[in-house]
Amino acid sequence: MALIVQKYGGTSVGSIEKIRAVAERVIRTAEQGNQMVVVLSAMAGQTDGLIRLAYGLTEDPDPRELDVLMSTGEQVSVALFAIAAKSMGRDARSLLGFQVGIHTDHLFGKARIHDIETGRIIRNLEQGRIVTVAGFQGINDHGDITTLGRGGSDTTAVALAAALTADVCEIYTDVDGVYTTDPHICPKARKMDSIAYDEMLEMASLGAKVLEIRSVEFAKKFDVPIHVRSTFTNERGTMVVAETKDMEKVAVSGVAYNKNEARVTIHKVPDRPGIASLIFDPVFRAGIVVDMIVQNTSQDGLTDLTFTVPKTDFYKTMKIVSDVAANIGAERVLGDEDIAKVSIIGVGMRTHAGVAKKMFETLAKENINIMMISTSEIKISCVIEEKYTELAVRVLHSAFGLDVDKGES
Amino acid sequence: MALIVQKYGGTSVGSIEKIRAVAERVIRTAEQGNQMVVVLSAMAGQTDGLIRLAYGLTEDPDPRELDVLMSTGEQVSVALFAIAAKSMGRDARSLLGFQVGIHTDHLFGKARIHDIETGRIIRNLEQGRIVTVAGFQGINDHGDITTLGRGGSDTTAVALAAALTADVCEIYTDVDGVYTTDPHICPKARKMDSIAYDEMLEMASLGAKVLEIRSVEFAKKFDVPIHVRSTFTNERGTMVVAETKDMEKVAVSGVAYNKNEARVTIHKVPDRPGIASLIFDPVFRAGIVVDMIVQNTSQDGLTDLTFTVPKTDFYKTMKIVSDVAANIGAERVLGDEDIAKVSIIGVGMRTHAGVAKKMFETLAKENINIMMISTSEIKISCVIEEKYTELAVRVLHSAFGLDVDKGES
Repeated sequence: MALIVQKYGGTSVGSIEKIRAVAERVIRTAEQGNQMVVVLSAMAGQTDGLIRLAYGLTEDPDPRELDVLMSTGEQVSVALFAIAAKSMGRDARSLLGFQVGIHTDHLFGKARIHDIETGRIIRNLEQGRIVTVAGFQGINDHGDITTLGRGGSDTTAVALAAALTADVCEIYTDVDGVYTTDPHICPKARKMDSIAYDEMLEMASLGAKVLEIRSVEFAKKFDVPIHVRSTFTNERGTMVVAETKDMEKVAVSGVAYNKNEARVTIHKVPDRPGIASLIFDPVFRAGIVVDMIVQNTSQDGLTDLTFTVPKTDFYKTMKIVSDVAANIGAERVLGDEDIAKVSIIGVGMRTHAGVAKKMFETLAKENINIMMISTSEIKISCVIEEKYTELAVRVLHSAFGLDVDKGES
Repeated sequence: MALIVQKYGGTSVGSIEKIRAVAERVIRTAEQGNQMVVVLSAMAGQTDGLIRLAYGLTEDPDPRELDVLMSTGEQVSVALFAIAAKSMGRDARSLLGFQVGIHTDHLFGKARIHDIETGRIIRNLEQGRIVTVAGFQGINDHGDITTLGRGGSDTTAVALAAALTADVCEIYTDVDGVYTTDPHICPKARKMDSIAYDEMLEMASLGAKVLEIRSVEFAKKFDVPIHVRSTFTNERGTMVVAETKDMEKVAVSGVAYNKNEARVTIHKVPDRPGIASLIFDPVFRAGIVVDMIVQNTSQDGLTDLTFTVPKTDFYKTMKIVSDVAANIGAERVLGDEDIAKVSIIGVGMRTHAGVAKKMFETLAKENINIMMISTSEIKISCVIEEKYTELAVRVLHSAFGLDVDKGES
C-alpha cells in the first residue's frame, strides 16, 4: 500500500464530465490498495472570471480580499470532486487550507508555506476516505485566507507529499511528461523518463510550463519524487527526482528556449567604478527583472553594456535607461526585441568537457550569430536572432543526441 | 453612534455595479458615525449555477460537500464588497463563518446557529473598519462548513445583531417594506410602519416572502428590531418589532393568501378511535406537511375528513390516501387543486370581538363560499375557490380599514 498525492490542474477538472473522469481515475488507484490525497486547481476559466469581477471594481484590489475571492475556485473543485466520488460509492472528503492547517506567511497572493498539519488528513485516510485538498490556498496566523500565487496547486501537492512522506507526488497535466525540448517546434523531441530537480528548475525558468519553479524547489528540498503525467492517458510520464549517477552519462538532457526577452545595449559608457549600479539601480527599483548582463572589455575608458529584460518591460526599461545614459554621458542606447535565448541543460555538463564548444560550433554551422552567452554549472544559454529559434533548437537537439531513435514513435 | 447590522440579498449584490452601489450606501451610513456590520448573500444567479454543477454530477449530492460548494457564493460577495469599499478609501474586512466563529449544529444544508463569537468582529469595528460577514454559513464543532438553508443570510444578520446587541438589523431587499397585503393584487395595499414579530411570522408562513420565518423567530427570541427596507431608495421601510399596545388598536394588520395548497376530502370514513392516525401516518411518513385538517360531526357512524397539503405533494397524497381509504372502508376520496387560503392577521384580534363574523360576512356578501376555516389567536384563515382569491383579498382589505387613505399615494 502506497500513499499517493495526486494533483490535477484546471483543464483536468474543467467540466463536470472531466471531474467525474478524474474521480473514476482516483478511485481506480485507491482500489489497488493505495491511500489517496488529491489536490485540485480551480476549474479552467473560473479563476479568470473571478479576476474579472475584482478588476471590474478597481484597478488595484485589496490583496487580502483578492485571496478570499480567488480561493473559492479551488473550494468549488474539491466539493464537486468529493460529490462525484461519493456518488460512485467511494467515501471522500474535501478539506480547505484552513481545515488541513496549511500555515503560510502573510504575503497575500504569493504566500509561502511555513508548515502543514497532517493529523486531519491522516485520520480521514485511516477511515478509508479519499481526501481532496484545495490547492493554492493556506491560512496565516491571523486566520486570514492566503493564496500561494501562480502554480500554487503544484506547490500544495508537493508540500503535502513532503509533510505526509508520501511515496510519490503525481502531477497530472495536459501533456504526458517532460520533453527534451518543445515538441511543437522539434518533432524529434523525446519524452524523458526522468529528469533531475536542478535540470527541471532550469527548464522551468526558461519557460517550459510543465511545473512551477517553486514546487520543484520544494520537491528538491524535501526530496519528494514527482511524477509528471497526463490526465488523459495511463502512460508513464516523467519522474522528477534527485540527481543520479546515471543522469551524468549524457552531457545534455534538454534544449530550452525563451522568446520573451528583449535586449538593451548602452554604447560607449564611461567605464568608472559604480557605473553599473548607477545604470541598474533605477531599473531594479522599477521592479524590472534583469536576466543576462554582459559588459565588454573597456577601450579608451569606454565600454558597451548589454542586458536582457522581459519583453513586457522593454519600453519602460528603454525610457529609464535612456535618461540614465544621458546623465552619465554614454553615447547611445539601442534596443532589440527580436531576440531569443536558446539553452542546453544537463547535470552531465559537470563531468563532460567540450559541451560549450560543441554548442557554438553547431550554431555557427548554420550561420546563426551568437549575441550574448551566459553559463551556469548545468546550463549554457545563447542569445540569437529570434528568427533562428526553431532552427537552433532542432540542430542542438540533434547535435547532442537527443532525437528520438529511428523506429521509435 | 449606533451599531448597525445590514443585510443585502442576492439581487442587491447581483453585479459589480450593484456591489459598488451597496458599498457607497454602507460608507455613507458609516460616515454618519455608525459602526457597520454588513451581511451579504450570494450574487443573484450564482447559487443556481453552483446547484446545477452539483446536480449535474448526481441526483443526490453529499450534503457536507454541497455546503462546501454553496458557501463559496457568499464568500465571493463579501470579498468583492470589501474590495469595493477599500477602493473607495474606507477600510473594510471580510469575515467568513469560520473566521467569525458562527458555530452551528451538524445539520448540513439547514444548520442551526448555536452561538456566535463576537471578538474578531468587535476588534475590527474598533479599528474603524466596516466588517462584512458572509451570510448563510457557519462551522460545526468538527470544523466543517455548514449552511443555514433558505433565507439563511437573514438569519445570519439577525443572529449577529443579537450577539452584538446591535441597535437595529436592517434587511435590504427589492421591496420597500412589508405591506398590508400583496400590492400586485390589491392596489390599495399600504406599507406598514411597523409589524409585530408574531404577525410577521404568520405573514411569512402564508407566503409573504419578505423575511424568512427562522430569522423572525430569532429576532423575536432575542428582541432584535428588524428594519425591512429597499436597497434602491432611502425611504423608511417597515419595522418588525415586539408587540406594542398601539398595535392592538387595529383588529387586523394584514391580509395574506396562499395558492400553493390543494385539498383532499375522504367521504364517509367509519368513525372509530384511531382512524385519523391510520389515515395520516402514511402521509406524514412520506414527508408531506399537512396544513389544515377539518373533521365533520359524525352521522350514522360515518364522518368526512378534509385536509390541505402543498400542491407539489397533491398527487402523491391522493395515491397514499386512496389506498388507505380502500383499506378502512371509506366511500371515496376527492381532490381539489383549485383552492386558495385567504387569511386575516393581527395581534389586535386578541382584544377585538367580532372579527371572524365580519370576515365571514364580507366574503358572503360577494357570494364567496367558505370551504374550510382555521383560526389561531392572531389569525383567521378561510379556504375558498381559487378564482375568488384576488376579490376576497381586496374586499377583506377594504372591510378591515386597511386601504390607503384617499390623497395618499
